[in-house]
Amino acid sequence: MAELLRGAPVADALTARTAEKAAELAKRGVTPTLAILRVGERPEDLSYERGALKRCAGAGVAVRSVVLPPETEQAELLDAIRALNEDRGVHGILLMRPLPSPLDDEAARKAVLPVKDVDGVTDGSLAGVFTGSGEGFAPCTAQAVVELLKYYGVPLKGARAVVAGRSLVVGRPAAMLLMAEGATVTVCHSGTADLPAETRRGDVVVAAIGRMGYFGAEHFAPGAAVVDVGIHADPATGKLRGDVRFEEAEPAVGAITPVPGGLGAVTTAVLVSHVAQAAEKAAGGGK
Amino acid sequence: MAELLRGAPVADALTARTAEKAAELAKRGVTPTLAILRVGERPEDLSYERGALKRCAGAGVAVRSVVLPPETEQAELLDAIRALNEDRGVHGILLMRPLPSPLDDEAARKAVLPVKDVDGVTDGSLAGVFTGSGEGFAPCTAQAVVELLKYYGVPLKGARAVVAGRSLVVGRPAAMLLMAEGATVTVCHSGTADLPAETRRGDVVVAAIGRMGYFGAEHFAPGAAVVDVGIHADPATGKLRGDVRFEEAEPAVGAITPVPGGLGAVTTAVLVSHVAQAAEKAAGGGK
Repeated sequence: MAELLRGAPVADALTARTAEKAAELAKRGVTPTLAILRVGERPEDLSYERGALKRCAGAGVAVRSVVLPPETEQAELLDAIRALNEDRGVHGILLMRPLPSPLDDEAARKAVLPVKDVDGVTDGSLAGVFTGSGEGFAPCTAQAVVELLKYYGVPLKGARAVVAGRSLVVGRPAAMLLMAEGATVTVCHSGTADLPAETRRGDVVVAAIGRMGYFGAEHFAPGAAVVDVGIHADPATGKLRGDVRFEEAEPAVGAITPVPGGLGAVTTAVLVSHVAQAAEKAAGGGK
Repeated sequence: MAELLRGAPVADALTARTAEKAAELAKRGVTPTLAILRVGERPEDLSYERGALKRCAGAGVAVRSVVLPPETEQAELLDAIRALNEDRGVHGILLMRPLPSPLDDEAARKAVLPVKDVDGVTDGSLAGVFTGSGEGFAPCTAQAVVELLKYYGVPLKGARAVVAGRSLVVGRPAAMLLMAEGATVTVCHSGTADLPAETRRGDVVVAAIGRMGYFGAEHFAPGAAVVDVGIHADPATGKLRGDVRFEEAEPAVGAITPVPGGLGAVTTAVLVSHVAQAAEKAAGGGK
């Protein structure tokens, strides 16, 4: 029986720290505030937004939702981002992406003010993750992977970590953060010759290729700690499933995140913690 | 007997392409120009500068050397960088680093105008390497590793590449560039539990830990392609040596760069190619 790496306690512990920060800021008349900028009504966006609203409420972080119609033009979108950049009452900006086409995702991403980039999308944040300078904010899901592993005391220093997936929101930044924790990191992807052979070498495996039920027992070493980043609605059952076939993998590994109930909550908690950090920096306190 | 991956033909091929570009630009009245900004007279800086001057001359790229005294203050240094940023006759800036203390290396690095950052030191360039967006310029040594391997037809797609060293000038950017070529990349470092076991898995191994003669035959698989990034003056003999014990490793591997005669020339050729690219962009042509 593998240890279950549930997300809720990790998220709650993070949120408790965020709430303390928010309470300190409140004494100074500052309410940490997240602006959520969304174009249209994509179900995934709405679902993520609901989670963020709930988590913010629990932490004493205010939310301002800005919703633009699906036919929004690029100039209007950039104006909306600029207005949030300039608004001193907004400490963090979450831009729901990918944007509906033909909006220019890249230009929008770069338009976010780096100090408000709580979602880790700007060049400054990405360079900060790459260099380990601590500047900007790490992409939330990638940071959530490390927060979860550290919460459960999974050793990272000197460990072999295998990251399956090289996306900019998870795979690559997670690799950098795990490396910063002292792990020896391998990044696998669609072009990897023998994926099971690679992931079986991992003391820690991050499954983040975005394909439902791709990973089975044969992908993991006994004792491995597995973090499943995938969230897919199973068309057959309507239930949420990850990149890992949980029922099959669970008896074979040392520890594993369930889906649902795994990383998702931690990701949102990381986002909210970033808002409090951004507010603290703007208020000239904290680290 | 391993294939010798000599740097000179790679550098010459690169420089021939750069010279073509420079000749095209010359017809339009543009002389691609590199500014080298150096504080003091460190022997390593002088040696690199000599190589760059020679390579520039061969490519039709002009060089402007700016030398500041060792006692230069931070404000003066930043003024010098700013002047080069604003000078329309300068297309690329090479800032010799590390700077002598107490100068602030980080602030100087960030002061370079991204479009002139031919050495790949700014956040924009580092984010570009990390994201694979092609923005900015990759750190020259890291790019040189990939140029050399491609020149000799070493397969990268689907190959296992092991990078030993996680510096920002070589290890991390080389890992990203190799990943962009389709390799499955592992980054090892001082905290790696069993380095020989990791590097022996590499079809390609980049030795970049900065310790003279650290790697021996036991570190490599038969048939591996080894790129030795180290350059050290052996105190016993005065000769240049790499991170790899060449005499010992050479019979055991498939291909290897000699030191001297390996990557160094390619690195300089990459730098000079960046200058021509920057000039081309500034002139509004090329890609």
